[in-house]
Amino acid sequence: MNQLWFYEKHTSGYGVHWRVNQVLHAEKTKYQELAIIDTVECGKTLVLDGNIQVSEMDEFIYHEMIAHTAMNSHPHPEKVLIIGGGDGGTAREVLKHDTVLQVDLVEIDSRVVENSKIYLPTMACSFQDPRLNLYIEDGIKFVQNTKEYYDMVIIDSSDPIGPAVQLYSKEFYLDVHNRLNTDGMIAVQSESPIFYQDVFVNVFENLSSVFDTVKVCLAPVMTYTAGPWSFTVGSKKWDPERIAGDKKQINGLKYYNEYVHKGAFILPQFIKEMLR
Amino acid sequence: MNQLWFYEKHTSGYGVHWRVNQVLHAEKTKYQELAIIDTVECGKTLVLDGNIQVSEMDEFIYHEMIAHTAMNSHPHPEKVLIIGGGDGGTAREVLKHDTVLQVDLVEIDSRVVENSKIYLPTMACSFQDPRLNLYIEDGIKFVQNTKEYYDMVIIDSSDPIGPAVQLYSKEFYLDVHNRLNTDGMIAVQSESPIFYQDVFVNVFENLSSVFDTVKVCLAPVMTYTAGPWSFTVGSKKWDPERIAGDKKQINGLKYYNEYVHKGAFILPQFIKEMLR
Repeated sequence: MNQLWFYEKHTSGYGVHWRVNQVLHAEKTKYQELAIIDTVECGKTLVLDGNIQVSEMDEFIYHEMIAHTAMNSHPHPEKVLIIGGGDGGTAREVLKHDTVLQVDLVEIDSRVVENSKIYLPTMACSFQDPRLNLYIEDGIKFVQNTKEYYDMVIIDSSDPIGPAVQLYSKEFYLDVHNRLNTDGMIAVQSESPIFYQDVFVNVFENLSSVFDTVKVCLAPVMTYTAGPWSFTVGSKKWDPERIAGDKKQINGLKYYNEYVHKGAFILPQFIKEMLR
Repeated sequence: MNQLWFYEKHTSGYGVHWRVNQVLHAEKTKYQELAIIDTVECGKTLVLDGNIQVSEMDEFIYHEMIAHTAMNSHPHPEKVLIIGGGDGGTAREVLKHDTVLQVDLVEIDSRVVENSKIYLPTMACSFQDPRLNLYIEDGIKFVQNTKEYYDMVIIDSSDPIGPAVQLYSKEFYLDVHNRLNTDGMIAVQSESPIFYQDVFVNVFENLSSVFDTVKVCLAPVMTYTAGPWSFTVGSKKWDPERIAGDKKQINGLKYYNEYVHKGAFILPQFIKEMLR
């Protein structure tokens, strides 16, 4: 077996190493170092600035959870805004909801989209859907400038380093609040409560200062190797824990089901206590 | 910061590396390579044959879940047998149940117990409890030879490599079944369904061939960096998903609560499908 390994730093004291079949692509984009690495363990991965963003092996866990928990607790989400998510995986799940008429996806780095189309077609398939509009723009400016109103905004961002920092701020959540309909919701990937407790708590507090209802759900994404991964949902009206009455089960999902929805919002004691 | 790193192999394609404050102890015992390593990220860890068994940082997740889900679904567990668990963490949690009159802990390697007493006192504290009897013996032979009957047997073993292999066999589960009272239960650590799917499915099938009711619960143990970790419970009478009626909430737990109990048995689609 070959001895090519990719070393991924998580914290100053902890990292993961993945045996590599092949480095399929690597470039420095305007915004970040981008690589597509085919790993022995998790198949093809998208790597930004040295960290795996998604792997073919378990991207379904992340993408189903960030999309369906929020989408299923809103009775009729028609217009959806996705900030980030240039691999297309979150949009793929959102577009499975037949209430959806329009998805605006705002990705800052065109090279993420272009490389995902080439190397990660099972995620980037969503870009072919006529309901999807792709904007290569800064998500923060898009939200400030748009005249649209949305039912759902999903923040599918990378870690809060560099350009993504502001996507975790109270100011940004306020701007999102202003672009949501009166029963709109926001779903945010909010990192691992174990390794990035400060970010996790910060998202909860910032969203809580803007939205009436804020709830956290969890799912263990193996590729992130950080125990439970968190998603935080802010809502103007609907309770994110409750599936809206008339939802049909979407066929073919690999992680999410109606019981998983309820179970995901049950927090272990130590995580509950972080949010007190 | 120092550059001493401990490399932990999980599969042939994947491993984790931990920055090390200090190697506190290392020896070759009669059965395995044993080390106590103080890591920057997770505090002191017990390492057997190169794999972290427990870390101070999140051992509470593993130990609370292997103990309390089963113990709380049994109305009056008095006599408990723990196979493995020489660090004392599982016994510590079991002994929090005031119905418990006797815990027999059978660890094959005395050096695990002795080193845990020195280096991991927050787990090994349980060895001071007068209700606990420590047997330094092979767990398989102990179960074959004992004349005792138990309400609960907990298999807190290492991975199914070397001497632990037989602890995952149908024959062993049959021997346990014979030493359980008519409403007895067995709780087994059953590995990660993602990385050790064969072991996980095998435990479920072997237990199902012996016990009337077999259920799986999940918890993400960060230190094991493998997404969800599984525990499989076999029962002669009581439903492991249901907390027995008269249970008092145990104070001071950091992971488990009555809602976590219910939520832990909700399985994602892909894991449900593994068990069909």
